[in-house]
Amino acid sequence: MDTTKHETTTLSTLANRLEVLEDKEKVQSLQFKYGYLLDKYYLTEIIQLFADHPETEMRFLGGKYKGIAGVTRLLDCRLRPKFANGGNGPVPGQFVDHIQLQGVVTIAPDGQRAKGRFRNFQQGAVHNSVDPKPNWPLQQWWEAGVYENEYIKIDGIWRFLKVRYQVAWLADFVKGWKDQERHAGMDTRLFPENPVGPDEYDPEFHTWPETDTLPFHYPHPVTGEPIAI
Amino acid sequence: MDTTKHETTTLSTLANRLEVLEDKEKVQSLQFKYGYLLDKYYLTEIIQLFADHPETEMRFLGGKYKGIAGVTRLLDCRLRPKFANGGNGPVPGQFVDHIQLQGVVTIAPDGQRAKGRFRNFQQGAVHNSVDPKPNWPLQQWWEAGVYENEYIKIDGIWRFLKVRYQVAWLADFVKGWKDQERHAGMDTRLFPENPVGPDEYDPEFHTWPETDTLPFHYPHPVTGEPIAI
Amino acid sequence: MDTTKHETTTLSTLANRLEVLEDKEKVQSLQFKYGYLLDKYYLTEIIQLFADHPETEMRFLGGKYKGIAGVTRLLDCRLRPKFANGGNGPVPGQFVDHIQLQGVVTIAPDGQRAKGRFRNFQQGAVHNSVDPKPNWPLQQWWEAGVYENEYIKIDGIWRFLKVRYQVAWLADFVKGWKDQERHAGMDTRLFPENPVGPDEYDPEFHTWPETDTLPFHYPHPVTGEPIAI
Repeated sequence: MDTTKHETTTLSTLANRLEVLEDKEKVQSLQFKYGYLLDKYYLTEIIQLFADHPETEMRFLGGKYKGIAGVTRLLDCRLRPKFANGGNGPVPGQFVDHIQLQGVVTIAPDGQRAKGRFRNFQQGAVHNSVDPKPNWPLQQWWEAGVYENEYIKIDGIWRFLKVRYQVAWLADFVKGWKDQERHAGMDTRLFPENPVGPDEYDPEFHTWPETDTLPFHYPHPVTGEPIAI
Repeated sequence: MDTTKHETTTLSTLANRLEVLEDKEKVQSLQFKYGYLLDKYYLTEIIQLFADHPETEMRFLGGKYKGIAGVTRLLDCRLRPKFANGGNGPVPGQFVDHIQLQGVVTIAPDGQRAKGRFRNFQQGAVHNSVDPKPNWPLQQWWEAGVYENEYIKIDGIWRFLKVRYQVAWLADFVKGWKDQERHAGMDTRLFPENPVGPDEYDPEFHTWPETDTLPFHYPHPVTGEPIAI
Repeated sequence: MDTTKHETTTLSTLANRLEVLEDKEKVQSLQFKYGYLLDKYYLTEIIQLFADHPETEMRFLGGKYKGIAGVTRLLDCRLRPKFANGGNGPVPGQFVDHIQLQGVVTIAPDGQRAKGRFRNFQQGAVHNSVDPKPNWPLQQWWEAGVYENEYIKIDGIWRFLKVRYQVAWLADFVKGWKDQERHAGMDTRLFPENPVGPDEYDPEFHTWPETDTLPFHYPHPVTGEPIAI
């Protein structure tokens, strides 16, 4: 009986450890699939990646968009006209690749929430043959930034809860970083005065040539201490 | 007895779930090792990554190369002279890095096949000191593309079954994307008229400034619906 | 009884297989966290990633730094003044991103050591507003290289044992690779004559336009044979 009990316990422990690894893989996969969708501006499908939850939020270029309504306003009303010509899917002669990589995923002890740090490495351009051209700040550029996201498992399916993208820099393809001015952020007016604006300003927004660290959701992997920034 | 039976079932279930994770890791590792081999044009070793199977295929720059014979023709007869000076391994003063990343791997229910979406992010150049220079369209360039590959497990070892690389864009290092012309594809004549040609044209081949989406092998991760492109 | 014994064995086997996957994830995560720390020059925290062990070593730009003392000398005494203005953390107007990717991790049979091949893809710049400027060879550049590292598990925690970074190339942001001269390496004099120098020269150091392959720690994934370089 003791032996059997021991086995049962171990089996349960193994199952829990296995589920943590499965969850890490699913969260990473969610982030990677988001990247492929964003490359082609399938914004309807991206909105569907988010949980409809009181804490749902997206932080982007200096603004906080709250709730699924805020996320939808950002993606549907703000980014769709700007990058997808008002449609859903790729536009000839315009591309923005969003390479998602270097994921560090942490599953909460209850297995229902997760945090993930990912890097975005980006390229974008509008082709000379496009007329009229979209209203983009640069015709061809490099961009990089870091995500610190939160995920939630609802009905057994992992979803975005909070997406926080901190752009680190943009660089003109020809000129590079050395003369690049600080990104002003997207928004100077809040919703609802601005019908596509954020609900709040993000006081921690900054970009190159500032170089502040986006806080790490995880401790130092060897000392176990918080990483002071 | 019921308890024992329950444990047996759970143990077997756990073993199956664990094997899926192991297989995902092996498939990703296969793709990553392929990338490191391709950086240095170890083409003999790359051919050995492929299964010798009726469905074996490689789609590359507008052509389909069928069977292990087709794959060998492409890698051995076409790419070896062009990129490896006819040898097997790196050439001084010439490099092409093939960064493999953002893998989404799906294992088939039978555990014997898999599909994987990966991104290739590439840099290549020939140094000014090289004389004579290889016949490359650009002297230094960036490239990106997406793979949608199929893998097969034979004798317990994962191998490439179908490699489909869809180049998204090439860009001259100095000029970038804005004036880049559509890539013509490699081949205008088929095998055997063209001894190094493909067996068929790939009717879905396109590159920048076209921006069509390479179909996703997986459904939307939250809705479970196919992703319409 | 046989059945029970079989189950016990299988449970133990499963636990071992699961631990290998967990270890792979931990080692990859260690490397990724290192990358995020290095982006911002948290050099104190990077030194803490290393084991204090007789085999501890870091190979960097032509030098071998031995033991935790050597690693500390490199990071604390050499890189800290050069990249972090003598501090610990980011410096306004200066950035070096170290994207860590394409990890192939192998756990030793005893589960106490691991090897990992990773790629580093790097961007760095100093902003024109910075005065005086740091003594860097280029004002804005791309860099790439490959790691072949060894890791050790001590007290259940994975740590760096040997970090070997082989830079492949540096490229001026504007000019690219075609005219780039061979990197001279950091050091012409050894420690202790040079108080921040390496303990030994690395005879295998080379960079673009040389293109030698950094040896693979793993065999060919299909044939199982060593990969001849």
